[in-house]
Amino acid sequence: MKPSIPQGTRDFSPSDVRKRQYILNTIKTVFELYGYQPLETPSMENLQTLMGKYGEEGDRLIFKVLNNGLHEKKDKDKLNEEWGKILDKPYSTPAITERALRYDLTIPFARFVVMHQNDLAFPFKRYQMQPVWRADRPQRGRYREFWQCDADVVGSNSLINEAELLAIYHQAFHLLKVPGISVKINSRKVLAGLAEVVGHSDQLTDITVAIDKLDKIGWEGVSKELTERGLGATTISFVEQYLNIGGSNEERLAAMESLLESSAMAQQGIKELRDSIQYFSILKKAAWESELVVDFTLARGLNYYTGVIVEVGTSAVKMGSIGGGGRYDDLTGLFGLKGLSGVGVSFGIDRIYDVMEELGLFPEQVASGTKVLFLLMDEAATTQVLQYCSALRDAGIPADMYTEQAKFDKQMKYANKRNVPFVAIIGSDELANKVITLKNMQDGTQSTLDIDQLIAHLA
Amino acid sequence: MKPSIPQGTRDFSPSDVRKRQYILNTIKTVFELYGYQPLETPSMENLQTLMGKYGEEGDRLIFKVLNNGLHEKKDKDKLNEEWGKILDKPYSTPAITERALRYDLTIPFARFVVMHQNDLAFPFKRYQMQPVWRADRPQRGRYREFWQCDADVVGSNSLINEAELLAIYHQAFHLLKVPGISVKINSRKVLAGLAEVVGHSDQLTDITVAIDKLDKIGWEGVSKELTERGLGATTISFVEQYLNIGGSNEERLAAMESLLESSAMAQQGIKELRDSIQYFSILKKAAWESELVVDFTLARGLNYYTGVIVEVGTSAVKMGSIGGGGRYDDLTGLFGLKGLSGVGVSFGIDRIYDVMEELGLFPEQVASGTKVLFLLMDEAATTQVLQYCSALRDAGIPADMYTEQAKFDKQMKYANKRNVPFVAIIGSDELANKVITLKNMQDGTQSTLDIDQLIAHLA
Repeated sequence: MKPSIPQGTRDFSPSDVRKRQYILNTIKTVFELYGYQPLETPSMENLQTLMGKYGEEGDRLIFKVLNNGLHEKKDKDKLNEEWGKILDKPYSTPAITERALRYDLTIPFARFVVMHQNDLAFPFKRYQMQPVWRADRPQRGRYREFWQCDADVVGSNSLINEAELLAIYHQAFHLLKVPGISVKINSRKVLAGLAEVVGHSDQLTDITVAIDKLDKIGWEGVSKELTERGLGATTISFVEQYLNIGGSNEERLAAMESLLESSAMAQQGIKELRDSIQYFSILKKAAWESELVVDFTLARGLNYYTGVIVEVGTSAVKMGSIGGGGRYDDLTGLFGLKGLSGVGVSFGIDRIYDVMEELGLFPEQVASGTKVLFLLMDEAATTQVLQYCSALRDAGIPADMYTEQAKFDKQMKYANKRNVPFVAIIGSDELANKVITLKNMQDGTQSTLDIDQLIAHLA
Repeated sequence: MKPSIPQGTRDFSPSDVRKRQYILNTIKTVFELYGYQPLETPSMENLQTLMGKYGEEGDRLIFKVLNNGLHEKKDKDKLNEEWGKILDKPYSTPAITERALRYDLTIPFARFVVMHQNDLAFPFKRYQMQPVWRADRPQRGRYREFWQCDADVVGSNSLINEAELLAIYHQAFHLLKVPGISVKINSRKVLAGLAEVVGHSDQLTDITVAIDKLDKIGWEGVSKELTERGLGATTISFVEQYLNIGGSNEERLAAMESLLESSAMAQQGIKELRDSIQYFSILKKAAWESELVVDFTLARGLNYYTGVIVEVGTSAVKMGSIGGGGRYDDLTGLFGLKGLSGVGVSFGIDRIYDVMEELGLFPEQVASGTKVLFLLMDEAATTQVLQYCSALRDAGIPADMYTEQAKFDKQMKYANKRNVPFVAIIGSDELANKVITLKNMQDGTQSTLDIDQLIAHLA
C-alpha cells in the first residue's frame, strides 16, 4: 500500500510550519496588544450545535463523526432507521453521528459564551486560531482542513471596538510588511437604508447579494440580476446612483447622507461609520501605509451582520479578500442568549501565506530554526562537538551535529537540505587547536573561531 | 436547547490556553535548541493508514468520519452493505468512512516519512505538537481530544540521539521548574536477554507485560501472572533476581552484565545504556536537579520499541508517568520503507499541566495577557484614553480600556474578572493634569504617573 493523505488536506513541512507560525504569532501579538484573550474550543462539537447554522449548503459540508461501538448496540432496527436518515436527508441530525467537526470558529464561540455567560466578564474579547473542516470540493486555495484566525468582542455596543479592529488589521499587515493593503468599510445599515428608500426593505437580501457581486460581474450583471429579482427600472437606476458615489471618504459619506436622507436607518449607519473612522484616526500610526476606504459597494455575504462591515484586500497580488468581519447584533441568540451585540474580524491565513510567498515577504531567518550544524569529520571529536553544541544551546542558539559516519560531501549535502545558515567543521587540526572552522552557507565564506567567538558571532 | 460540548472534550478559557501555551512553548524552545524541526500533519488520515496499527483495542477507539454526500450516491445496495460492516465488524475499513481522526502522532509521522523519503534529509529530526482523538470512556485525566507533544529522529543509529533526548527531558523540566523529576532508563534488549537466558524468548511479550505491572501489583502479582502464563519456578526465581538488582547506576549495570552474561543481546543492551549515559553526562548541566536512573523494571507497554526505553515521573505529586519514549527499529516498515531506525520521546501535556497547577508552578504573569486596563470614568476622556492605549501598545505593552458607560464599581469588578495586574484611572483631575492614577491590583497601592512614567513602569 502506497501511503497517502485525504484529498484537500496537507502535511506542513518544517519550513511551512515556521512560516505559518510567523504569520499566526504576528497576528496573535497584535490581538494581545489590543486586549484580546485566547480561547480554544474542541474540534468536535455536538452535531446539533452546528446543524442549521450555516444554511443548507453549510449543513451539507459538515463532516459528521460516526458514533463508536455501534456493533455492540442491541437495537439494530433503530440503528438502521438512523442510517436511513443519512441516505435520505443530508440535513438531519441522525443519532449514529452525534458529533461533527467544527465548521467555523464563530458558532463555537457563541456556544461558549452562552454556556459560560455567568463566569465571563463582558465585554468579552477573545481571539481564536484553530483549524476548521469543510467537505468542499478541493481546488487551488480551497482545503478541507484550514485554519481560521478570528478576534471578536461580545457585550459591547461601543464603536471603539470597530476602531480597534480596524487598527488591528492595519497594524498586523504593517508588521507582516504586506504592501498595497486597503481596508474597505461600509455599514449594513446603509444597505438597509437603500432598500428602505427604494421601497423594497423586504428584498434587502436580494439587493445585498446582487451588489456583493459587483466586483465579479460588473454593473451590467448586477443590473440584470436585480431585474431578474423583480426590481423595476426606477429602483435599479437609484441603486446605480448609490453605487456610483465616489470621492474621498468624507465626500462619500456626505453624498450618501443626502442620497439616503429619508432613511433614519441609513443616517444611523453613516454616523456609525463616521464615529468608527474618527476613533480609528486617533489610533492610526503614521508608519501604517495601508488605507481605509469607505466603499458602499461592499456587502459581505454572511447574513448575520447588522452594522459596520469590513473587508481587507491587497493590490499587490491578484487575490480575493484576505480578511473580513463586521458587527452582528444577535449571534448568541441562536443559543438562547438575547441582546448581546458583537463585532469581529477574521484573517485569511492561507491566502495571506500565498501572498507573502509570492512576494517573498518571509524574513530569511523564519525558514530555518537550527542556526549551526557541526559536521562529524573524526569520531575522536565527538565529545568536543557535544560540548560545543551544549555551550551554544546554553546561549540560546539552536545547534545540531551530524551523528553518522559519512564522507564530507554527504554531510555537506545534508547541511544544504537542512537549510542551516552555518556549518561548523572540526577536523584534526581544529580539534588540536581548540578552534572551529565556520562556513557561511549563504556566501560560502569561511572563518576560524574559538567557541566564545562562535557564540558571539551567532548570538 | 441548552448548549453543551461532547463528553470527554474541553473548552480552554484564556488562562487555560496561556498556561498550556507556556508549557508547549517551553518544550518547543528546547526541541529547537537540539535541532528538531516542526512538522504538522492533517487531523484526518485515510482510515486505511490507521487501522491495524494500534492493536484491536486501538482500532475500536478510532473516530471514523462519515463520507459526505452519501444521499447523492446511486448504488444504495453497496452503501447498505458497507453500513452492514460497521454493525458487524468494528475493525474493518468500510467504504462509507474513508477518513478517520488521528489517533497518535507516531503513525502519521511514519506515513509522512515514507511519502517524502526522497525529499527528506536523513537523519530527520522532527517535533510535533497537535491534538489526537480517542473514543475512550472519559474519566478524570482521560479525554477524547488531547494534545501529544513528540520529538523523534529517524534514520540514525547513533546513541547521541538517545543522550540528546535525555537532555531534552532534563532541560525542559528544569525550565518548567517541576521538582522531583526522575528519568528512568532501560533497554528492550536487556529484557529480551532475560527472556533468552531463561529459555523463553518466545514469551518475551508475556514477561514484559507482567514486569510492566510491577509498580501496580507488586512482586507477588507479577509472580502470579508469570505462573498463569505458564512459566516455571526456576524462571520466576530468576526474574525475581533480575528485578531485585539495585545500587548506583554503575552498580546496576555491572550486576546485570554478570547476571545476563550468557546473552549477547543483553550485553549489547547494557553497552547501549552505558554509551547513552556517557554521552548524556557530557551534555548534563550542574543546574539540572533531576536524576537519571537505570531501572531494569521499566518495560513500557508499546511493542514497537526495540532498544533504549525511557520514562519520566515526578515524586512531588501522586501521578503516573509524564513522559516516555524509546528506540524502534522498524516503524516505517509498516508503510514499506525498511531499515530506518528511529528514537523518540513524548511529553504528557495534560498531566504536566495538572502537576504544575497542583504545585502552583505557573509564573504569575502567564495567566494574564493584558497588562493594564483603563477605566472610562468620563466620556470626555475617551480620546485621551485611546491615545494612552496607543502609546502603550507602541511600547509593546498590551493595554485595554473599558468602553461602556458604567459605574466605577462595575468597572472595577470587570477589571478583577479580567485578572489584569494594573488598572488606570482617568478622572477629570487626571485629565486636566495629563496624569494617570495607576492602581496595582495585587497589593492595592496607587501612584500618579504621566504616560512616559507609566510606560517605563510597565515595560
